[in-house]
Amino acid sequence: MAVAAGGCSPPRAWPLEGTVMHMSPTETGKAWVCPTVRQTLLQIANDPTLDHEYLPVLGFPEFTRAATELALGRESRAVIENRVWTLSSTTSRASTQFLSATPLLTCPVYVPADSLRCIFQDAGFTEIRPYHYWDTVRLAVAIEEFLEVLEVWSWLELCQVPLVLNPSLFMSHSCSRKHLFPFFDVRAQGLASGDLDRDAWALRHFVAQGFELFCAQSFSKTFGLYDEQVGNLIVVARDNETLVGIRSQLQKQVTGTWATPASLGARVIATVLNNPALLNKWKQSLRMLAEKIMLIREKLKEKLRILGTPGCWEHLTAQSGTRSFTGLLPSQVAFLEKHKHIYLLGSGQVSVCSINSHNLDYVAQSINEAVSGTAGRAQGLSWAEME
Amino acid sequence: MAVAAGGCSPPRAWPLEGTVMHMSPTETGKAWVCPTVRQTLLQIANDPTLDHEYLPVLGFPEFTRAATELALGRESRAVIENRVWTLSSTTSRASTQFLSATPLLTCPVYVPADSLRCIFQDAGFTEIRPYHYWDTVRLAVAIEEFLEVLEVWSWLELCQVPLVLNPSLFMSHSCSRKHLFPFFDVRAQGLASGDLDRDAWALRHFVAQGFELFCAQSFSKTFGLYDEQVGNLIVVARDNETLVGIRSQLQKQVTGTWATPASLGARVIATVLNNPALLNKWKQSLRMLAEKIMLIREKLKEKLRILGTPGCWEHLTAQSGTRSFTGLLPSQVAFLEKHKHIYLLGSGQVSVCSINSHNLDYVAQSINEAVSGTAGRAQGLSWAEME
Repeated sequence: MAVAAGGCSPPRAWPLEGTVMHMSPTETGKAWVCPTVRQTLLQIANDPTLDHEYLPVLGFPEFTRAATELALGRESRAVIENRVWTLSSTTSRASTQFLSATPLLTCPVYVPADSLRCIFQDAGFTEIRPYHYWDTVRLAVAIEEFLEVLEVWSWLELCQVPLVLNPSLFMSHSCSRKHLFPFFDVRAQGLASGDLDRDAWALRHFVAQGFELFCAQSFSKTFGLYDEQVGNLIVVARDNETLVGIRSQLQKQVTGTWATPASLGARVIATVLNNPALLNKWKQSLRMLAEKIMLIREKLKEKLRILGTPGCWEHLTAQSGTRSFTGLLPSQVAFLEKHKHIYLLGSGQVSVCSINSHNLDYVAQSINEAVSGTAGRAQGLSWAEME
Repeated sequence: MAVAAGGCSPPRAWPLEGTVMHMSPTETGKAWVCPTVRQTLLQIANDPTLDHEYLPVLGFPEFTRAATELALGRESRAVIENRVWTLSSTTSRASTQFLSATPLLTCPVYVPADSLRCIFQDAGFTEIRPYHYWDTVRLAVAIEEFLEVLEVWSWLELCQVPLVLNPSLFMSHSCSRKHLFPFFDVRAQGLASGDLDRDAWALRHFVAQGFELFCAQSFSKTFGLYDEQVGNLIVVARDNETLVGIRSQLQKQVTGTWATPASLGARVIATVLNNPALLNKWKQSLRMLAEKIMLIREKLKEKLRILGTPGCWEHLTAQSGTRSFTGLLPSQVAFLEKHKHIYLLGSGQVSVCSINSHNLDYVAQSINEAVSGTAGRAQGLSWAEME
């Protein structure tokens, strides 16, 4: 699931006017579709044995099994101990609806700013607080602030797994001490480092530490399949007995609200994940995409340097993944939206994938104007201050 | 949406043991898939311009528009007067969830026996009463009983549209007098008479009479696409102002619970409905299917006559559509399930489509044993009594 700029509605990727920042790492500005998707869809369409019967309520088993293995790893102790259960549905919504029927409903929920607030709100949670994992002054991950907040959390949602890779060790320690309930939102596994296992490290670490947790996994970004239901909810419980209780409740709820999920998207992904040749091709696509994203970050930084844009832009390449904190002030974000039709999140985050060789100059020039015109420099430290 | 035998879960069509009664009007016992589905899915998979971007929250407009036209007719006054709105989602659930937030929540809901009760229950309705449109003694549509019940109803769900074709005139009069809110469930348009317009007559009549109503339309049966979300909710309001209010509420609710719907199923159907050549091919398939269903009814009746099965079996061919009241007693239904692995609904309804040349003899022989063994004859009148 991608996140729209602060709104409750799902993200829209239709071009508005001018340059719109959405996930389309193609030179044409069209959304990227993983090449294996087309190939697999053709295979499925050509399959004379496919009967289009109802899927099981909990989804296509070949899909949920392979997806879970991808997130937790083949050797996950939790899987071996029969403490993991999955379901394919509108995963975030199914899980928040489930959690709202538990005592957790009255606990505060910490969600990353500008993200997923609405899903918890819709499920009936009232105390939803934002947390910040980005230091807007130092333009780096806010590890200390993050750990400090952990001390007062009662449960939390961990978004942007790649970003919390480094502090995970400390975090899992703090979470454990505070009896927190972590909720992972894995929606771009492989797009941060180009390596599926590396991007899943934080989640696997929490599971290995014996945490009970939920993980909402989505393949929309990594397959370029936004128009199909390709989510998978992974439930990791303390023991099998607890799991059986959760399963029975969740199953009832999902049956009542969503009935059986749509199958074609899940079939496409299951085919790729379960076929070594296709899996390799997909992994290669992910690596190329991750490299391309890093290249765009490099190019944007270089353009801003050449334009003499005030401030330091090292943070653009110090981050990874499809979205990047720019360090732009709200007034500068507003300037870009109003005068340049470039739409960023309120936090100053940009979808790096929306930048391509056709609009790179325009984007860099616009950021330069925004920074030079409204605030003298970006909110970060200057080159001199960094040294 | 098909109906499982009395259970809350969606129907399962995996073979259990012996002969299972599900929608598979093929000689192999496999579920029927409309031939245009495969052809269209291949077209879609081959389309290089398809970008798999998010659909609008309310669904694929080409799908909802064409589907609504199919149900209400091209010339519907309600459409012209801008009083109709549609959305594609898990339609029955979206609509009952919406209705549960209105004063209708406290009113009794009348639903056809063995059908849709759970969906209303899940939405919070407490007073759900069954209604019977089949006279189990006379083995015919229970028009009088039906109209009598209308006198006390506060709102109702009209299922099996083809069955209520004849009494519709009286019904719309009674409904209007009692300020009832009709809810149509159109899930096999074209499979009763083989003619799409004829099967939609009751719905169109109610709309023409100026009723406000909901219509949950599904294409699963008519396209053989059970594994995709191919529902369309049609909202007909009194005037455009009322419609705007309903739309705003429903849109919010659907966004919160279901996000954007899956697209491939809707794309397949939209392609067929909007392409005259494919539409014609599909209509032809429906006609053939309807004829085949009638032929199966004829053959079963004939077999029972040859076997000398007690009772009159004229009602098998007096009905139309994919399901048929058999007139079997609950004890006979239980006998078939326990000893013959033939699974009927508790009301004695059988899915006619599950009978084919391979199992016809077995089914007829089993019914004969059930009737001869447990009750002497079916619950209906004997041939002599009919005359």
